Amino acid sequence: MEHTENTRSNTDWQGILLQKLKDAKEAQHVLQHLSTSEKNALLEEMAQALLAHEEAILAANAKDVEEAKAKAMPKARIDRLMLTPNRIQAMVEGLRAVAALEDPVGRVARSFTRPNGLMIRQVHVPFGVIAIIYEARPNVTVDASALALKAGSSVVLRGSSETLHSNTAIVKALHVALDKLHLPRALVTLIDLPEREAVDVIIEARGTIDLVIPRGGAGLIHHVVDRARVPVIETGVGNNHLFIDRSANLDMAVRITVDAKTDRPSVCNAIETLLVHQEIAETFLPRVAEALMARGVELRACPQSLTILHHAGFDAKPLQPEDDRTEYLDLILAVRTVPDLDAAIEHIQRYGTKHSEAIVTEDPQNAQRFLQSVDAAAVYHNASTRFTDGYEFGFGAEMGISTQKLHARGPVGLLELTTLKYEITGEGQVRGHS
Amino acid sequence: MEHTENTRSNTDWQGILLQKLKDAKEAQHVLQHLSTSEKNALLEEMAQALLAHEEAILAANAKDVEEAKAKAMPKARIDRLMLTPNRIQAMVEGLRAVAALEDPVGRVARSFTRPNGLMIRQVHVPFGVIAIIYEARPNVTVDASALALKAGSSVVLRGSSETLHSNTAIVKALHVALDKLHLPRALVTLIDLPEREAVDVIIEARGTIDLVIPRGGAGLIHHVVDRARVPVIETGVGNNHLFIDRSANLDMAVRITVDAKTDRPSVCNAIETLLVHQEIAETFLPRVAEALMARGVELRACPQSLTILHHAGFDAKPLQPEDDRTEYLDLILAVRTVPDLDAAIEHIQRYGTKHSEAIVTEDPQNAQRFLQSVDAAAVYHNASTRFTDGYEFGFGAEMGISTQKLHARGPVGLLELTTLKYEITGEGQVRGHS
Repeated sequence: MEHTENTRSNTDWQGILLQKLKDAKEAQHVLQHLSTSEKNALLEEMAQALLAHEEAILAANAKDVEEAKAKAMPKARIDRLMLTPNRIQAMVEGLRAVAALEDPVGRVARSFTRPNGLMIRQVHVPFGVIAIIYEARPNVTVDASALALKAGSSVVLRGSSETLHSNTAIVKALHVALDKLHLPRALVTLIDLPEREAVDVIIEARGTIDLVIPRGGAGLIHHVVDRARVPVIETGVGNNHLFIDRSANLDMAVRITVDAKTDRPSVCNAIETLLVHQEIAETFLPRVAEALMARGVELRACPQSLTILHHAGFDAKPLQPEDDRTEYLDLILAVRTVPDLDAAIEHIQRYGTKHSEAIVTEDPQNAQRFLQSVDAAAVYHNASTRFTDGYEFGFGAEMGISTQKLHARGPVGLLELTTLKYEITGEGQVRGHS
Repeated sequence: MEHTENTRSNTDWQGILLQKLKDAKEAQHVLQHLSTSEKNALLEEMAQALLAHEEAILAANAKDVEEAKAKAMPKARIDRLMLTPNRIQAMVEGLRAVAALEDPVGRVARSFTRPNGLMIRQVHVPFGVIAIIYEARPNVTVDASALALKAGSSVVLRGSSETLHSNTAIVKALHVALDKLHLPRALVTLIDLPEREAVDVIIEARGTIDLVIPRGGAGLIHHVVDRARVPVIETGVGNNHLFIDRSANLDMAVRITVDAKTDRPSVCNAIETLLVHQEIAETFLPRVAEALMARGVELRACPQSLTILHHAGFDAKPLQPEDDRTEYLDLILAVRTVPDLDAAIEHIQRYGTKHSEAIVTEDPQNAQRFLQSVDAAAVYHNASTRFTDGYEFGFGAEMGISTQKLHARGPVGLLELTTLKYEITGEGQVRGHS
């Protein structure tokens, strides 16, 4: 995000920003008293407003795309930025899908009565204000708003400057829906200030912002995690591994490898490294190489793998030390042989980012050992890592995949966007003997 | 903690410290494969080692007490520091109580099968390494170790320099127990380096320390929350309120007020402010003042309350603006009248620390509104705030009271000291159509 030429002082824009955050906090109290059907009616109103504003949104998006092209933004990124009537329709359907989900607010997590008669209920309640810091995709503006509002929180949106026209047009439509239902616009607050440091003001606003979720590349995520003084849910870097054990069904192993690498290489639940038990490497590597290369995957192989692949007539580059730590997000796969299961687990513990890890094996003991020993949000036996996803888990929608151990680990669905509160009802109980 | 005279360079002590943390991480893998009964046997061995080392522990503690007296430490703090055979017996019983608790590791939080046949289990698993940064009380050394180990994590202990002799002697005993069972000493790691910055190294050790819990005063907690780059569970500042509604049963209201203020004024679940509906203030304030003053409570009253109290012949000081934000932790109570329920809620939202808040009312609608609107870890209707406690909630033991919204909110018991992992078992499922 570029600095503007104008000469607003720090206090000006920071004051404006802090006021916006406070307004978002204040507005949330209204949400707390809306029923589920009132929240769903709001989401439907938003869906209709998006459709009604389709033309304006597409026109604004065209400006963003034009500016992106002028800056020679990479094609893949322009593609993610670009909106079409189909993509707007998908946002509308997303809003309706969230409306159809069970309301997490008020759900009782635990409920028990103590010997002294105190009734204790642990209830899911809204966070308050959820801030989303994100890059490129304008659909996040709608998805994040829908999830936060349904979970009873107001939402503060800080997208990248590249999507500012699109996001402004989308939020304008969402505000029309809020107006129609006489709800405060501050429930959906777009932070459109040009100052780059606005992100830091948001993530340091303890007491006003209750939760921040960064969605984007590793640089953004690390910046937020390092600087934030408000609670963070860290989403997504996935340097994931697939280990093919000695006893693996090799047909299954090929199918899962191809899916986990090529189904959608640019996402965080794809694999980046294939670990192969050395005793089956000679049989397995040529078979999987053939299937992968048919899909244009470049292989980077350890010395032993390289020998086997070259000997079988396949092309592969030598693996470099940095490959072990690289999330390619591309049609590239690191390949390593390992002497046994424990070596595979050790490699994963050393280089993995605790996102999604998988083993293919027919040996139930090895499967159990892998599932138990590997420390990650999702650990798979005989299935593709691509299933780490809110929809695939049946949560309906998600705000990203959390790779941290606090609170939400794995797909962040509606339930994970709430916090808990103990409500205790008594009849005058006191603890002391006074 | 004072700097030492010796001239170790930064790299020396930081290197030593980081190695200790890595050893703690490495040692944890052993714990992961211990059964519940093996963990319980370890806790029993520790209990016996404490008893066997009682003399050495008391002697070490006497040194700490002597040094504290030489430094003219306040008496209440010396009392918390001092160990006696009874207090050692209490630690022993604490270890046995934790052994008797249900093992949280492996407990299945959710379990479901997807239409494609994937079996998904969300399982409680250890964090890894839990660091505790604490002040004064040497019993925390034992309690924290017991809870962390039972929850499958190794523990890194950083007590204050004032308890160093005691903690060293206690941990020496715990190590004897580990030795006896051929378990690595690094499962219980005392950080006894004199450098004050050791705390910062611990709380910035991303990837090695999985969770840090500060236990102590507001200064310590804020320092840890501000600087930490590892996940934190923020415990404890409790600026708590009790609101007496118009329809309250006044006998009950007096009883709860007295308990919540005087049962143990120095702890975080005591109340600091009494809010009284103005329509009952004239009747209620003299009654509660009498009961409170009989227990030596000093009252600091708002103008309206002051008039009523003075008129009824009770002593009270005028409330100062800073009183609203003060956690007295002492026999002092701020008293305010409020025009209605909403004003009480507003005051609490403004000044409360989201710990424990209570209403006394016979009006079910007001009770419901209070329970729903007040944003705190524990919200009470017709009961004392003193019940916010792991034992009182039936969790058996606790690592403190969390006032944050992520992960654990309220008493932090064994279950809250674990994280979650999804274990997914398939039969070769892939997501794409490749």
